[in-house]
Amino acid sequence: MARPTPLSGFPEWLPAGRAVEHHIVETLRRTFELHGFAGIETRAVEPLEQLLRKGETSKEVYVLRRLQEEAGTPDERSGQLALHFDLTVPFARYVLENAGHLSFPFKRYQIQKVWRGERPQDGRFREFVQADIDVVGAGELPYHFEVELPLVMAEAFAALAPIGMPPVRILVNNRKVVEGFARGLGLTDVDAVLRSIDKLDKIGPAAVAQLLVMDAGASDTQASAVLELASVHGEDVSVIDRVRALAVTHGATSDLLTTGLTELGALIGAASERAPGIIVADLKIARGLDYYTGSVYETVLVGHEQLGSICSGGRYDTLASDGATSYPGVGLSVGVSRLVSRLLSVPLVRTTRAVPSAVVVAVTSENTRVASDRIATALRARGIPVEVAPVAAKFGKQIRYADRRGIPFVWFPAAADDDVPSDQVKDIRSGEQVAADASTWAPPEEDLWPRVLPAHSV
Amino acid sequence: MARPTPLSGFPEWLPAGRAVEHHIVETLRRTFELHGFAGIETRAVEPLEQLLRKGETSKEVYVLRRLQEEAGTPDERSGQLALHFDLTVPFARYVLENAGHLSFPFKRYQIQKVWRGERPQDGRFREFVQADIDVVGAGELPYHFEVELPLVMAEAFAALAPIGMPPVRILVNNRKVVEGFARGLGLTDVDAVLRSIDKLDKIGPAAVAQLLVMDAGASDTQASAVLELASVHGEDVSVIDRVRALAVTHGATSDLLTTGLTELGALIGAASERAPGIIVADLKIARGLDYYTGSVYETVLVGHEQLGSICSGGRYDTLASDGATSYPGVGLSVGVSRLVSRLLSVPLVRTTRAVPSAVVVAVTSENTRVASDRIATALRARGIPVEVAPVAAKFGKQIRYADRRGIPFVWFPAAADDDVPSDQVKDIRSGEQVAADASTWAPPEEDLWPRVLPAHSV
Repeated sequence: MARPTPLSGFPEWLPAGRAVEHHIVETLRRTFELHGFAGIETRAVEPLEQLLRKGETSKEVYVLRRLQEEAGTPDERSGQLALHFDLTVPFARYVLENAGHLSFPFKRYQIQKVWRGERPQDGRFREFVQADIDVVGAGELPYHFEVELPLVMAEAFAALAPIGMPPVRILVNNRKVVEGFARGLGLTDVDAVLRSIDKLDKIGPAAVAQLLVMDAGASDTQASAVLELASVHGEDVSVIDRVRALAVTHGATSDLLTTGLTELGALIGAASERAPGIIVADLKIARGLDYYTGSVYETVLVGHEQLGSICSGGRYDTLASDGATSYPGVGLSVGVSRLVSRLLSVPLVRTTRAVPSAVVVAVTSENTRVASDRIATALRARGIPVEVAPVAAKFGKQIRYADRRGIPFVWFPAAADDDVPSDQVKDIRSGEQVAADASTWAPPEEDLWPRVLPAHSV
Repeated sequence: MARPTPLSGFPEWLPAGRAVEHHIVETLRRTFELHGFAGIETRAVEPLEQLLRKGETSKEVYVLRRLQEEAGTPDERSGQLALHFDLTVPFARYVLENAGHLSFPFKRYQIQKVWRGERPQDGRFREFVQADIDVVGAGELPYHFEVELPLVMAEAFAALAPIGMPPVRILVNNRKVVEGFARGLGLTDVDAVLRSIDKLDKIGPAAVAQLLVMDAGASDTQASAVLELASVHGEDVSVIDRVRALAVTHGATSDLLTTGLTELGALIGAASERAPGIIVADLKIARGLDYYTGSVYETVLVGHEQLGSICSGGRYDTLASDGATSYPGVGLSVGVSRLVSRLLSVPLVRTTRAVPSAVVVAVTSENTRVASDRIATALRARGIPVEVAPVAAKFGKQIRYADRRGIPFVWFPAAADDDVPSDQVKDIRSGEQVAADASTWAPPEEDLWPRVLPAHSV
């Protein structure tokens, strides 16, 4: 077999990179659980017809076929299956399927791979890990969850600062503000307005003005008012006053706008207390997906804005509906692979070693391997990760085995026929070697497990 | 949308079941890491032609197609892609692809979903989680790893006993013993002999004898000798003597048999010291896959033998080869979904609650929600999982909110206009309520996080 080459868009990491990814996933999980979110996983596949109900991404779905399946005869009653392209659609299905067994409001997190057949680019993959949190209610869901969720994410990202992750800005807006403003102006094709605004960062204000005129039926004056709205951003509730003033100037007030500004003001007010400088109102945030109905969120990594959003989401009044009950929700999704990929490629983070072992127990001869195994067992019983040297080579070679892997300690068993009466442990970084007992010795806390650190820390 | 129904063969768990699965995965991971195995993940897809190189399972592979892809024009240079059906084939590819960046022997664990288009049955799924450990060498791999790996698994399963997992028997054999015995007897179609023995549990000895005659070209006497060999099992090295005696009786000695018996003896000897009663020699274990060349392993859950093996593997002299170097390995794979499915369906395990939260902070009125949020933040800062009541309903309703989720504590904020001057926390199981301070109070250790316990424990 020739040496295989990577598949574009399907990222994989070496063990040290995977350790970084795992650390990030576990840090997110811990924050989510501290806030009471329960973990679930859904199957990787959904019936294709379910996935196609949601516009946009469905074009890029991967459809499955069993190799032995006859063409045109999909499996039994399940119909044609495809890989999920996000975790929201499967979660909506899960909620409907299990509604009788869940307590609402239901707070769940879900960390899984998703697949999209898109053209791979920097930070845009065909297979990637997402980490989602959502709260879903049965029939109703109080607004304060739209405040809580970005705060949970802000806390999760703050917990990653010690490993070298740059700060984030969680940009928030409210669909009701944009829609209320647009309707107040007399624009009725709100989706076209949102789609136009969504392109601001890509094509700039002049081109967006053209789009607003051509696609959303705006006059030049209306387009200019929308662009003024979209340029508003700020960290405190003064943004609310600025939008209100704009609406008055342009005669764009409406009840919906008032509701939206009350909601956005509550979010920014809470954020300026609980996550100052992190959560920022940005009126140009529109989000492409048409099911959002209230708050919308995007997150940039400061200094890496070109990477695109690493955490997005919003409020949807109807995540799912079974006819009798509709399930409103609010959720945010972290693009874990996009984040990890950037942290590793710069690099911004590093691991202290690529293997878990803190200690290699040397083997004096294959005949006494069992003695080395016993030492390893004693250390592991006290929670110390240990491996035994693979071959009873010269000790110098066994030390190099540890060194190549970044393992800090090598343990030398006592040898009866030796002038060393007791076990010895050597810190191969300093060369210091001391007598040690496997039932009591432990490495320094910072050496016990591999740690993830900023790339340029010492 | 009508209420969706589950897809047969694609298991999903409710939050409490997922908590059990997660606990099991984390327990396996910890044991693997204590033994120095580094975690990796591989992409879910491989080029179809790579998957088809391995016989057996390839028939049931799921092939991918992008919905927008034109029929008959698979993606670019990557060829047709399919979902991996195990973690061994992707690992072999990963080793070849990254050989220059890995240190050998390379010990890795990998816990991921795999997919097979098989007919779903009890414990046999189309999508399921496997947890694999393998050690792979460059050019050579010492035998002692064939001893170490089942011992690691024995330790991992022992760590699951406290949650109610029944004991296991890891059944071991050595291909060299079977092949050496068969060749010593004069049988040359060793694969046919192995395939026949592999059916013993399903079709019984009489039918296997027929198979040996018809498929493996055995005489009745030879078939009977093979069946005698396959009936040998035991926990200590006396099994080695019994096989040797059988070989002498039937004139079936060979150098290969001698090598195989030395290896199997070393494994059983170490196992009887380090995992007595867990690792058992069983000469009928053959394993279907033709790439095993030394030790082979299967694992039954005691009392649930009909479930089939929950952990299988073996030694392969050529996991991968790039022409210049071949990579021998030894590995074992836990069928996590099969195990979890049985533990949940009996049930053998339970969780103390389905959500992480140990505390619900009550909300006196929506105007004072921010005070409840502050209490929650203070508790979380000390590592206590907390949620805030979703609605400022009557306290009785907020207590029921906690009760329905199994959350043991409800926290009542002090109210200035109340005769309760300080915060109070109530254990809703006992009804006991005490004054508490969010900067010092903690729940009892056993209530801090949900725990997984035997189903019938109190």
